[in-house]
Amino acid sequence: MYSPTIQKLIDLFSKFPTIGPRTAARFVFYLMHKPKEEIEELIISVSDLKKNIKICPLCLNPYEGEAELCSICSDSRRDRSLLCIVGNETDLTAIEKTKKYQGLYFILGGTVSRLKKADIEKLKIKELEKRIKSGQEIKEIILALNPTAEGEATTLYLERLLRPLNKKITRLGRGLPLGGELEYADEETLSSALESRR
Amino acid sequence: MYSPTIQKLIDLFSKFPTIGPRTAARFVFYLMHKPKEEIEELIISVSDLKKNIKICPLCLNPYEGEAELCSICSDSRRDRSLLCIVGNETDLTAIEKTKKYQGLYFILGGTVSRLKKADIEKLKIKELEKRIKSGQEIKEIILALNPTAEGEATTLYLERLLRPLNKKITRLGRGLPLGGELEYADEETLSSALESRR
Amino acid sequence: MYSPTIQKLIDLFSKFPTIGPRTAARFVFYLMHKPKEEIEELIISVSDLKKNIKICPLCLNPYEGEAELCSICSDSRRDRSLLCIVGNETDLTAIEKTKKYQGLYFILGGTVSRLKKADIEKLKIKELEKRIKSGQEIKEIILALNPTAEGEATTLYLERLLRPLNKKITRLGRGLPLGGELEYADEETLSSALESRR
Amino acid sequence: MYSPTIQKLIDLFSKFPTIGPRTAARFVFYLMHKPKEEIEELIISVSDLKKNIKICPLCLNPYEGEAELCSICSDSRRDRSLLCIVGNETDLTAIEKTKKYQGLYFILGGTVSRLKKADIEKLKIKELEKRIKSGQEIKEIILALNPTAEGEATTLYLERLLRPLNKKITRLGRGLPLGGELEYADEETLSSALESRR
Repeated sequence: MYSPTIQKLIDLFSKFPTIGPRTAARFVFYLMHKPKEEIEELIISVSDLKKNIKICPLCLNPYEGEAELCSICSDSRRDRSLLCIVGNETDLTAIEKTKKYQGLYFILGGTVSRLKKADIEKLKIKELEKRIKSGQEIKEIILALNPTAEGEATTLYLERLLRPLNKKITRLGRGLPLGGELEYADEETLSSALESRR
Repeated sequence: MYSPTIQKLIDLFSKFPTIGPRTAARFVFYLMHKPKEEIEELIISVSDLKKNIKICPLCLNPYEGEAELCSICSDSRRDRSLLCIVGNETDLTAIEKTKKYQGLYFILGGTVSRLKKADIEKLKIKELEKRIKSGQEIKEIILALNPTAEGEATTLYLERLLRPLNKKITRLGRGLPLGGELEYADEETLSSALESRR
Repeated sequence: MYSPTIQKLIDLFSKFPTIGPRTAARFVFYLMHKPKEEIEELIISVSDLKKNIKICPLCLNPYEGEAELCSICSDSRRDRSLLCIVGNETDLTAIEKTKKYQGLYFILGGTVSRLKKADIEKLKIKELEKRIKSGQEIKEIILALNPTAEGEATTLYLERLLRPLNKKITRLGRGLPLGGELEYADEETLSSALESRR
Repeated sequence: MYSPTIQKLIDLFSKFPTIGPRTAARFVFYLMHKPKEEIEELIISVSDLKKNIKICPLCLNPYEGEAELCSICSDSRRDRSLLCIVGNETDLTAIEKTKKYQGLYFILGGTVSRLKKADIEKLKIKELEKRIKSGQEIKEIILALNPTAEGEATTLYLERLLRPLNKKITRLGRGLPLGGELEYADEETLSSALESRR
């Protein structure tokens, strides 16, 4: 239906997270109507990603600059006894925005629905084990994965994996979110909200 | 459009919570196609409500039977040092279903968005004050209203009202509910989830 | 969890169309807080349904009064050559509200997803056949069932059933509804919109 | 919160249609985890857009190749007496997919909510007037804009603009879409569905 150049770009945008072929087509026509300079700005920004961004060897968070570690891992004011394991970069950002957490992070690279070897291997398990072994100062590991079915399965897996290390392992508290209603809360969430009352 | 008898019943059902005129019309046609016996069963059940149900003078929860108090307030195994204030009967039921709470309740009769006198008077504030004064054994008052804007405004009002009593006043813990995602949680919810980790 | 009188009424309201046990519970507590007079008003209105409402023998539409037919079937200004078959009473009302249709109706009593005998028997097929046989003046039969999977299956069934009568049989036109978008329309809908352009 | 290179790209993706900053951030992390070859493929495809794609001078549809017109406008089998005005490229594609339309198109470049000069100037009105003047063979102009508030306003504007040309001007038919329900249809849609029955 579309000409080859357009179809090719629709196919590439269709692989972007949450994007189907219809929105991908809208992206292509949006770009087609942009002036040449804006297209070049986008192209430069995309290629800068690969050029400028490094992955922090400690937490796997992307950063840029000459430093050997990202700005969080190299910040001497952060509490090195706390390690918070998150699913991906946007979860780390969400926690940073609260300004309530002063420890370090580790980005697991996702969550898995089944604990099959092929799935587990997509996660950064080896990097996590290496990180924890080298971090003798870690006292508490916070498993901050989403309380979805996938996140719960991954949390259970990590608990089993990390238990032999004899460090304190915690999870995020469950409770009612802003705007929630008791009547529609599941029993586990409401139980947690009662227990963590204050 | 509809004949008077039908329109009258549509109008009455339209006042039911969450029901608009279209669903109300569907209710009426649903009833119209039911056999006479089922209609009579419904009529008897509705009139039984007023006949059989009493309001517990302590917690304002409806109950039936000869007892002077509802089954929760008259249960000697419940912890009389805990009083949980909920918005309405369905919130009480939600907490009871968790089987994690062993204290008593008080049903406030709703929440208010503004702290105007006319709004406050719709709540059972006088009954609450009387209940707490007569309950010397109460040590902790749990404000278990919905974490919505209305529930928060009402909670703030109750905190100010009850502070002079010098009892412990708590709220339900905030956190991520089952199925929630860090990325879409508001900062207050995520902060609470971090603080109540365990 | 609830006392027997309350649970009984929750069970009855849960059978109402679109209503689940949670909304049913809200209905019961809504009624419980109403004054006695309003409850009696509701009870009288429900029992009036069975007392006052008759079913029109021609179109199966409910009506009240002393007349032998409903106000539409007995209206001499309506066009007796047009018979519009609708699924239920609310569909008839929707068409009447447009004020564009001056023919008569027949209420089929629903639609069926499968053309099994047990399903078909829930529809008023015999009454329809009788209605059409006695209506020699009918020239066009409009099959105005919802364009859903169920409505389409029922329309196909009726087309086969009524074809031997040698009357004109039509369906409602397909097209884009108010607020619709070409991009998200299915191909059949968009084809019809093109063909019925004017 | 994010490093400059990442933030820059988030800002650019946030301008894409339907994309907010959260999804834009997910796009960036998605790209960051892709191998270098895939990034280069994307960059080449984006720059190919500007390089390979031409705009058809007759219908304003994008196309590629050496031809002077797009494949639709240069197809001698298409009916040159029909001109269908659509909002944008995806609407044209939606109509082409039905395979029921054999005329030509004109892409207006959007719709406007208010008929202010500044808004109208965003549309390809001059190009449309030129197109129609040069197309003496056009007998019918189909205004195939979305039946939304914006589309309706633009349709009214075009009807007034094109009336002096003394050509047949039509609109897409309104009606119930696949899956629609009579009960929830607006009166105008249902009226059209009745009138275009067949």
